[in-house]
Amino acid sequence: MSRVRVHNFSISLDGFATGEGQSADAPFGHAGHRLVGWMKATRFWHELGVVEPGEETGSAGVDNAFAERFGPGIGAEIMGANKFGPPGWQDDPQWRGWWGENPPFHTPTYVLTHRPRPALAMDGGTTFHFLDATPQDALAVAREGARGQDVRIGGGPGTVRQFLAAGLVDHLHAVQVPILLGRGVRLWDGLEGLEQHYRVEAVSSPGGVVHLTFSR
Amino acid sequence: MSRVRVHNFSISLDGFATGEGQSADAPFGHAGHRLVGWMKATRFWHELGVVEPGEETGSAGVDNAFAERFGPGIGAEIMGANKFGPPGWQDDPQWRGWWGENPPFHTPTYVLTHRPRPALAMDGGTTFHFLDATPQDALAVAREGARGQDVRIGGGPGTVRQFLAAGLVDHLHAVQVPILLGRGVRLWDGLEGLEQHYRVEAVSSPGGVVHLTFSR
Ligand SMILES: NC(=O)c1ccc[n+]([C@@H]2O[C@H](COP(=O)([O-])OP(=O)(O)OC[C@H]3O[C@@H](n4cnc5c(N)ncnc54)[C@H](OP(=O)(O)O)[C@@H]3O)[C@@H](O)[C@H]2O)c1
Ligand SMILES: NC(=O)c1ccc[n+]([C@@H]2O[C@H](COP(=O)([O-])OP(=O)(O)OC[C@H]3O[C@@H](n4cnc5c(N)ncnc54)[C@H](OP(=O)(O)O)[C@@H]3O)[C@@H](O)[C@H]2O)c1
Repeated sequence: MSRVRVHNFSISLDGFATGEGQSADAPFGHAGHRLVGWMKATRFWHELGVVEPGEETGSAGVDNAFAERFGPGIGAEIMGANKFGPPGWQDDPQWRGWWGENPPFHTPTYVLTHRPRPALAMDGGTTFHFLDATPQDALAVAREGARGQDVRIGGGPGTVRQFLAAGLVDHLHAVQVPILLGRGVRLWDGLEGLEQHYRVEAVSSPGGVVHLTFSR
Repeated sequence: MSRVRVHNFSISLDGFATGEGQSADAPFGHAGHRLVGWMKATRFWHELGVVEPGEETGSAGVDNAFAERFGPGIGAEIMGANKFGPPGWQDDPQWRGWWGENPPFHTPTYVLTHRPRPALAMDGGTTFHFLDATPQDALAVAREGARGQDVRIGGGPGTVRQFLAAGLVDHLHAVQVPILLGRGVRLWDGLEGLEQHYRVEAVSSPGGVVHLTFSR
């Protein structure tokens, strides 16, 4: 059976996975780039080609080992509407996601939204499909799209929380960054006792973050 | 100058330092003993004499190294009313704290409350004083009681948060336990940007907890 996985999901010490005030200029609101700095310092990120050639190559230690697990074995992603675009994107028929013409997903990618639109085929193997469905039904569709491979839940926090609460997630990798955001959207709300269904591991990295793994 | 320190302050992954439903039978509410299990497994705890002779001696690794810092150099503690007793203790003139006749503080101990009462001299060097005061004023009184030594802020979360927000804490050791309590009293609320005033370190322990150190 294909597994459902969350990777590289970054949260602050106080549990926020995004800040307040998300906009086209600030995908993470007042959090800015602070939640994802640890990942941008990895070789994984540099090899995604997001970094200018000539810049340093990125660390290859524990942060990178975790980061690289993002892609292998994944046949589809499910994400929430607020990851796909800033508030209001649903009123913009031209919006094609944050990631340019060649998004880093390279699989069918299912965007959960109450205002679905026709599918968008991008370069590099990513096709965005728009779905108004329960987590269970969305997962069934995504599993078909994944052709036997695993399905990644890509975020944001509202979507990850929904799949965790429904008991659908087999593997959660969250990365705790040593900042206090104070406001935004929390990952852990409403998940009392979640740890009872998983093996939980925490490992601190020399880069200053803590990798939390929930697996079953 | 004497320093202000917090030690062995246990929180869940979702940031709660105590559960919901605190009572005489349940000092941590629905959290039970889960927040303090890591500490009860240390040699430090066993040497406090809380454990029956003949029981195993406790681990002496990183959890213990942190736990033992509780006492040395401390000349006074400040705690909140809800740490001193269960809801309603202020209506019980006989209440002398949770800890029996020889509490583990062994210094003057200042209980912040809006309903102060006369001081209580206990065995072993602990005297409970009851204070209705701002954090700044309470600290000035406790520093005098500490005779040049450091002052520990003993909790609960409401009290620690108040001293953190006022910029009065020099050293915070929090221990993140891999459980999701879902409800209770949070430590981190209202402390956006706190990390900017400290060096922050996170270290995971083989026991499964993460020691967070904020120092300045
Ligand atoms: N920290 C990280 O690692 C990480 C990772 C990814 C994203 N992010 C950040 O997270 C933020 C977004 O997170 P979020 O929690 O606000 O939102 P989200 O999970 O991305 O999206 C939630 C929205 O998706 C739609 N939706 C969700 N479930 C649905 C369902 N079952 N059926 C139909 N529609 C559904 C709804 O939008 P509509 O009702 O409007 O259609 C809902 O408001 C962004 O700031 C993003 O940058 C962070
Ligand atoms: N996780 C840990 O390591 C840890 C450590 C210690 C305690 N705890 C737990 O934490 C819980 C208590 O925490 P809490 O946040 O609910 O309460 P708390 O911080 O212990 O006490 C708050 C109360 O103290 C009084 N108070 C605080 N500041 C004051 C001031 N400046 N002036 C006058 N009175 C003041 C007020 O009580 P009144 O208005 O009623 O007088 C206030 O409601 C307990 O369950 C305890 O077991 C956990």
